Amino acid sequence: MHSPGGKVSGYVALMIVQIIFLVLFWLFVRYEKELLPPAIDAEDAGSAKEHVSKYPQFQDIQVMIFIGFGFLMTFLRKYGYSATGFTLFMAALVVQWSVLMKGFLHMEDGKISLSLENIIDADIAAAVPLISMGALLGRTTPIQLLCMSIFEVALFAANEYLALNVFSICDCGGSITVHAFGAYFGLAVALMLRPSSDQNEAGKLEGASYTSDIFAMIGTTFLWVYWPSFNSVLAEGAGGERAILNTFLSLAAATVTTFVVSALVSHENKLDMVHVQNSTLAGGVAVGTVCNLLLGVHGAVLIGIIAGTVSVLGYRYLTPWMTANLRLHDTCGVHNLHGMPALISAIASAIYASMVTVGDYRSELQDIFPAMVGTNGTETKIMGGLARNASSQAGYQLLGIAVTLLIAIGGGILTGVVLKYTSFRNLKKDEHHQDEHYWEVPAVENKEEYLNMLAKLLDDANAADAAAVAVAVANYGSNSDSQAAANFNWRPFLLRNWNAIVPANNLYVRGALH
Amino acid sequence: MHSPGGKVSGYVALMIVQIIFLVLFWLFVRYEKELLPPAIDAEDAGSAKEHVSKYPQFQDIQVMIFIGFGFLMTFLRKYGYSATGFTLFMAALVVQWSVLMKGFLHMEDGKISLSLENIIDADIAAAVPLISMGALLGRTTPIQLLCMSIFEVALFAANEYLALNVFSICDCGGSITVHAFGAYFGLAVALMLRPSSDQNEAGKLEGASYTSDIFAMIGTTFLWVYWPSFNSVLAEGAGGERAILNTFLSLAAATVTTFVVSALVSHENKLDMVHVQNSTLAGGVAVGTVCNLLLGVHGAVLIGIIAGTVSVLGYRYLTPWMTANLRLHDTCGVHNLHGMPALISAIASAIYASMVTVGDYRSELQDIFPAMVGTNGTETKIMGGLARNASSQAGYQLLGIAVTLLIAIGGGILTGVVLKYTSFRNLKKDEHHQDEHYWEVPAVENKEEYLNMLAKLLDDANAADAAAVAVAVANYGSNSDSQAAANFNWRPFLLRNWNAIVPANNLYVRGALH
Amino acid sequence: MHSPGGKVSGYVALMIVQIIFLVLFWLFVRYEKELLPPAIDAEDAGSAKEHVSKYPQFQDIQVMIFIGFGFLMTFLRKYGYSATGFTLFMAALVVQWSVLMKGFLHMEDGKISLSLENIIDADIAAAVPLISMGALLGRTTPIQLLCMSIFEVALFAANEYLALNVFSICDCGGSITVHAFGAYFGLAVALMLRPSSDQNEAGKLEGASYTSDIFAMIGTTFLWVYWPSFNSVLAEGAGGERAILNTFLSLAAATVTTFVVSALVSHENKLDMVHVQNSTLAGGVAVGTVCNLLLGVHGAVLIGIIAGTVSVLGYRYLTPWMTANLRLHDTCGVHNLHGMPALISAIASAIYASMVTVGDYRSELQDIFPAMVGTNGTETKIMGGLARNASSQAGYQLLGIAVTLLIAIGGGILTGVVLKYTSFRNLKKDEHHQDEHYWEVPAVENKEEYLNMLAKLLDDANAADAAAVAVAVANYGSNSDSQAAANFNWRPFLLRNWNAIVPANNLYVRGALH
Repeated sequence: MHSPGGKVSGYVALMIVQIIFLVLFWLFVRYEKELLPPAIDAEDAGSAKEHVSKYPQFQDIQVMIFIGFGFLMTFLRKYGYSATGFTLFMAALVVQWSVLMKGFLHMEDGKISLSLENIIDADIAAAVPLISMGALLGRTTPIQLLCMSIFEVALFAANEYLALNVFSICDCGGSITVHAFGAYFGLAVALMLRPSSDQNEAGKLEGASYTSDIFAMIGTTFLWVYWPSFNSVLAEGAGGERAILNTFLSLAAATVTTFVVSALVSHENKLDMVHVQNSTLAGGVAVGTVCNLLLGVHGAVLIGIIAGTVSVLGYRYLTPWMTANLRLHDTCGVHNLHGMPALISAIASAIYASMVTVGDYRSELQDIFPAMVGTNGTETKIMGGLARNASSQAGYQLLGIAVTLLIAIGGGILTGVVLKYTSFRNLKKDEHHQDEHYWEVPAVENKEEYLNMLAKLLDDANAADAAAVAVAVANYGSNSDSQAAANFNWRPFLLRNWNAIVPANNLYVRGALH
Repeated sequence: MHSPGGKVSGYVALMIVQIIFLVLFWLFVRYEKELLPPAIDAEDAGSAKEHVSKYPQFQDIQVMIFIGFGFLMTFLRKYGYSATGFTLFMAALVVQWSVLMKGFLHMEDGKISLSLENIIDADIAAAVPLISMGALLGRTTPIQLLCMSIFEVALFAANEYLALNVFSICDCGGSITVHAFGAYFGLAVALMLRPSSDQNEAGKLEGASYTSDIFAMIGTTFLWVYWPSFNSVLAEGAGGERAILNTFLSLAAATVTTFVVSALVSHENKLDMVHVQNSTLAGGVAVGTVCNLLLGVHGAVLIGIIAGTVSVLGYRYLTPWMTANLRLHDTCGVHNLHGMPALISAIASAIYASMVTVGDYRSELQDIFPAMVGTNGTETKIMGGLARNASSQAGYQLLGIAVTLLIAIGGGILTGVVLKYTSFRNLKKDEHHQDEHYWEVPAVENKEEYLNMLAKLLDDANAADAAAVAVAVANYGSNSDSQAAANFNWRPFLLRNWNAIVPANNLYVRGALH
Repeated sequence: MHSPGGKVSGYVALMIVQIIFLVLFWLFVRYEKELLPPAIDAEDAGSAKEHVSKYPQFQDIQVMIFIGFGFLMTFLRKYGYSATGFTLFMAALVVQWSVLMKGFLHMEDGKISLSLENIIDADIAAAVPLISMGALLGRTTPIQLLCMSIFEVALFAANEYLALNVFSICDCGGSITVHAFGAYFGLAVALMLRPSSDQNEAGKLEGASYTSDIFAMIGTTFLWVYWPSFNSVLAEGAGGERAILNTFLSLAAATVTTFVVSALVSHENKLDMVHVQNSTLAGGVAVGTVCNLLLGVHGAVLIGIIAGTVSVLGYRYLTPWMTANLRLHDTCGVHNLHGMPALISAIASAIYASMVTVGDYRSELQDIFPAMVGTNGTETKIMGGLARNASSQAGYQLLGIAVTLLIAIGGGILTGVVLKYTSFRNLKKDEHHQDEHYWEVPAVENKEEYLNMLAKLLDDANAADAAAVAVAVANYGSNSDSQAAANFNWRPFLLRNWNAIVPANNLYVRGALH
């Protein structure tokens, strides 16, 4: 069906990438000076302790990346191995690549200096291709995903450098540089990989089972709980605590809103797990860029309410529209969880930036809006800033999101073209959303699946067909040799024999029992 | 079956509550002064750091509330969406309400001053209605649950104020104010909502499946692991570390005891997952009120052994008795996990308080037993305390639990009456413990359920009936139009046709195959 | 089938052990001095804060022990209650025993002084029998496991004392003293309990289901995420941060390598969940002993690549060979996850130790290689060390692993003999890997299992047999009284009636419908 050779070559290429990483680490990366043993008569290890004070937040973010994203994507009923496994694979590859890529942008003396801060940054970077993966979930090979992630993270690092260091925008929780970038990059790739119009209906495994929905709630809940750590890890001092509070309250408000709106717009006013798993988190994204600003508590709550509403409505109306009209299949709905809430965050950042005064932000102005230091009206000029005024900073915030969208969508289209038209293997429609093409799957599962399928056939078929299926089942054992029986695979057998079976249904009484 | 209009109005009411919260946040809540940017020439951000040092423990408690409680309640086999989802919904609502309610009791200049401490308190408050929800699990609508939680948290805040600030009792881990209150309030509501005597048998879905029991172990284990954070978060200095050690050892002892007693009292000496999921945690509750006292390590271990024993015996003998005789259905057995262990903790606190001496507690007396400062025999009077002696403090501990029980049970009865006799919709017996009345449930699940049901029917029925079912199944497909087939719902079909099918069983040979 | 009396006596013995622990705690264990309330005029509580700074890492390790190990072992499809439950039981017993055992080796004035450090040590000690449990999973009674753990932890504490305090080896992350010890002890026990050669084939339940594999990924992912905390918790200062970085990067490299090698060596180049669940973690073990040394980042990555490769190849080729030739069933493959990677770590430690210079390690030499202090060439002699040179330290590292293997294997053989030949009950072949012998299992499960079995029978059987099964099913209901029907247990019924049913298959038309 597919060429194993092609699969092997992709994996071999990834091993070569890993070995290249090894060499690059050897040549370029060194422990930061403070991590080397202090001289025997040195006084203290203060700076090492300084880094380590962020360690608990780093661990929270680790849980978000590996458990949070991984399990959130287990909602598909036959894609749980891929969701958790490929998350692990991609994140392990990306964190190394991110240390190198972001390191190259900040080298000293031709070396990258490594400390806990670098791997915090690397974990945050890992979120980017994981978000994009959500837009593509179940429609690509693992090799496509991983190659995409390598290219995407390089582009992400460049865009982040541009936004933070050149445009000097504020983006404490990364909604612009991480969430918007990851979402729109992924959507652009998905658009390039879109199916032909005659294959646009939903895949037969593109849905949840009762169990897979509960697995997904593990991801949702850990993301919810640790989101304040994600948003606050790069903030300093009082701004860090504000980031925690604002994120927490925005999430809470978005969650209440999500449940209410989900019930109001869904079929029979029933709650929809897709909304609960995703839109409850939209508050964390939407408050991200502004989480350390002086929003006021009500500001955070208001942002949460807006984000929850927009996200649920997106799932209910916009995603089906995009699927039907653009053939853009956004498997996890990252546009509703990451894309639109990130736009809300960017707009909010422009609004709040336009109201910044030196009298409010005082000594934090330099950390949060360094380009505004030296503004007219500032009594004390702390350091050399660009003396931007508030409305100019607001403009730069909007420039930041615009350029991010441009680079993300452009990069995504380019990546999508490469994935589609070069020698990468593309999945066929009937290979979507199932683990068994890339994973050893327990044999017993095929039987469970068979029972489900039998139920479905009995349901769909007329009486004669239903009986015929039973005959097929009964005959199968007796006609096939034992090796074939061991490699139990009912699906193609039944599909292949369907027409032949139907007229033979009178065998049911005689043949099967004789 | 039920009026969608009724459902919508409940959700709309909750949205109005969320908007009222927004307005109250706007009018009354401000960041604490230390969270505002310091003046440009300010020296340090010491106090912000002080708060943030509790951040890792706060995150542990977040995991307990959202993952711990949420997944512990997934043990019911068709109630996992509700367990995890309503936990998220309720907690998101309650944390906001608790910030406001507890804030109103401690306003300065007409404003509530917000910092990390408030949301730690809010997370602890969220535990209270989640405990009560355990007593009612599967027997209420979500609207009933959420309305209950709003009323309960207001009452909880008042009772806590009374116990801690007026009676000045010690309750470091909140066993009296949180666990006893939540458990007995919930039990009182459950008593009010009890079924009529002819509907007292267990619901057909009131039990675990193999998978749902393992999901519940996620909740149990995270609660176990992080319980020391819950008990110690409000303790200071050395008392905080004692709280960690005592809680850890009490949990360990309760766990060993739970397994042993479970095996001794259960059918065929098999271990019971209900005990393992719940009674292992009883050690954390029972040591709660006294966890920062000078128990001695053996004191903590002894409390754990007693709690594990009482809790398992409660599940084995007391809960079935209460169900049979009082029609009090305590779905999660909160009486055994939270109720009785909290009573043990209260009694232990009276015993240990009666032995307090200034010579032992020295500088911590003021933190732990502020009302005892100034006791006869104290050489140094540190601050103005009430000069209570040890036995008087012991009496106040007992007064604290007595008043808590009174308020919780009184408030629960009142709430139960409101939920039952006002315009709230009450669930019917056959709607209990299943998600599908309030959640979109994957269609495939109905088929799995159908297979289970078919197995059950084949089991219960005589041979003729069993065959008849097969006919019904086969005929179903042929007789129904395709739209009806899509909205697959076997249960009512089979129940409706049961009597008609039985005499028709000879169709099995002819009709179905012809 | 088995004597309930025997089971009760084991549990009763464990209760007696718990009570002995209580008495020993009472007699010997006291809070450390810094945990007692300071005098009223004392200045600060500095040292209490010192301990508590390790608290977040302690909590990470707690998650690893209870969630990580517990869920990693849920991969067997009918052993999830035991995996999570016995992990909880064993860890709760072992942490108490470890506080006592390790305390007895470090008493002051005849008392054990308890602080957070002791329970961090206790959690690490709990990993040891949990690793061994992995080698035996599903092949022992819980009583055998728990008795093993009591003996093993005592021996572990002695061996650790020998390695660290007598041989003075470095072993920051415990790969030698914890992982190698636990793995080879467990394998030695498994060898002693090996089946007779005619019972050597895999058990019928010795495999995963789709759902159980995803549960296991919860364990894997939490172990992955928190492994840096495990390896760094006992390191100080800059060495602690190096331990975090090295562990993180070794894990990342091992993970990428695991996926690649798994795809290359597996059937049809499909990924194998066993490899993903386990070998991704081998990087954490292999870097353990050396994680705080000056490996360089590339050193950590190289170790990860080697560990991932060795571990996957071990699962693919060595474990099946050991099963076939030694009848050594290593259920979880602990030899590949803990055993061989720990040997790699020990060898790496000898290599790195042989290159240590005072000029590199400076003030940390005393912490990391205390026996090397006073080496020729040291300009400053800090404290009384043994003045070992680098190659001598390398030799001691090898001595450390050799003695550890000797004690672990010797102790394991002895323990295995005791478990096998004394009055402990041994499981029969058909009792392996299933919860239902020791746990109450939901009745509905039997029906699901029946459906699976029916599918299997239909698959294996010829047509006549398949039909006969249907008759058996149909007859079952009519022939049995209602009580028997309630205690639904198809398996023995069908097995018992199999031969009788086959010739009776013509009853299908008449008997069943009449």
